[in-house]
Amino acid sequence: MARIDHIDDPNAPAINSVVPSVTCVVQNDDGQVLMIHRVDNDLWAVPGGGHEPGESITDTVRREVREETGLEIEVLRLSGTYTNPRHVMAYDDGEVRQQFSLCFVGRAVGGRLRGDGVETKAVRWVAPADIAGLNLHPSMRLRIEHALDSGRTAPYLG
Amino acid sequence: MARIDHIDDPNAPAINSVVPSVTCVVQNDDGQVLMIHRVDNDLWAVPGGGHEPGESITDTVRREVREETGLEIEVLRLSGTYTNPRHVMAYDDGEVRQQFSLCFVGRAVGGRLRGDGVETKAVRWVAPADIAGLNLHPSMRLRIEHALDSGRTAPYLG
Repeated sequence: MARIDHIDDPNAPAINSVVPSVTCVVQNDDGQVLMIHRVDNDLWAVPGGGHEPGESITDTVRREVREETGLEIEVLRLSGTYTNPRHVMAYDDGEVRQQFSLCFVGRAVGGRLRGDGVETKAVRWVAPADIAGLNLHPSMRLRIEHALDSGRTAPYLG
Repeated sequence: MARIDHIDDPNAPAINSVVPSVTCVVQNDDGQVLMIHRVDNDLWAVPGGGHEPGESITDTVRREVREETGLEIEVLRLSGTYTNPRHVMAYDDGEVRQQFSLCFVGRAVGGRLRGDGVETKAVRWVAPADIAGLNLHPSMRLRIEHALDSGRTAPYLG
């Protein structure tokens, strides 16, 4: 489904939905980050998606990473909240969702790397220094910076 | 609105709603905790309530504390996530909401203590040692324990 992100846009459509969602910064033993190349907006991102009723939030994180990358992970910690009401996502079915996202840090414990063949056209381990050269949404870049910032002792609140 | 909490209850009604909500453990300079005595279930609790579209999550925390206690607060940190899908809240209008709650720690920066006269029949600063003697829902007691646990370096994930 196509999606347009509006940030601080006075012409953004009115919010009609709030769905808690997650992203996860998964690192391997070499410190590389698990990245996906999304079909919907042609941007690189870390895996993630929306909470479904009946799940705990860590269930959601594990399911989304499994669906999008094939990997089983352990959720290590929460690295930030991203709930800026001036960041709005407009989908082509008319849903206008306020950003309400929690970002976690995880590590792979099993599974085998693969894309889902639908939402994802590539799945790759990327060294942090190489992330700068990829095309990422600024809000995604911020989540990764916060998650990898070892000087940060508590989750970012935004 | 009356509410019944079901935890690990095989006869709990089916979930039809997920609304992100918050609680906040506010302490004063003496280490006392800001507690309210709720009208709906006659239990003591820390202030909190549901996220409204157009708010950041810290906006929600500040608004709920203001509405329920009269105090203006600064949000200091996130102390835990509480998203157990086997904790279900059934309201008398038919809504059956899965628990999806974030707990924060705050400190008072202004305002004047008062109840809202509707949802709250008392508002009081309570020393941590005295909380044990109050009638609290176990899930609320857990949030307070996690928030006051100085040995905990990262938010509880549940």
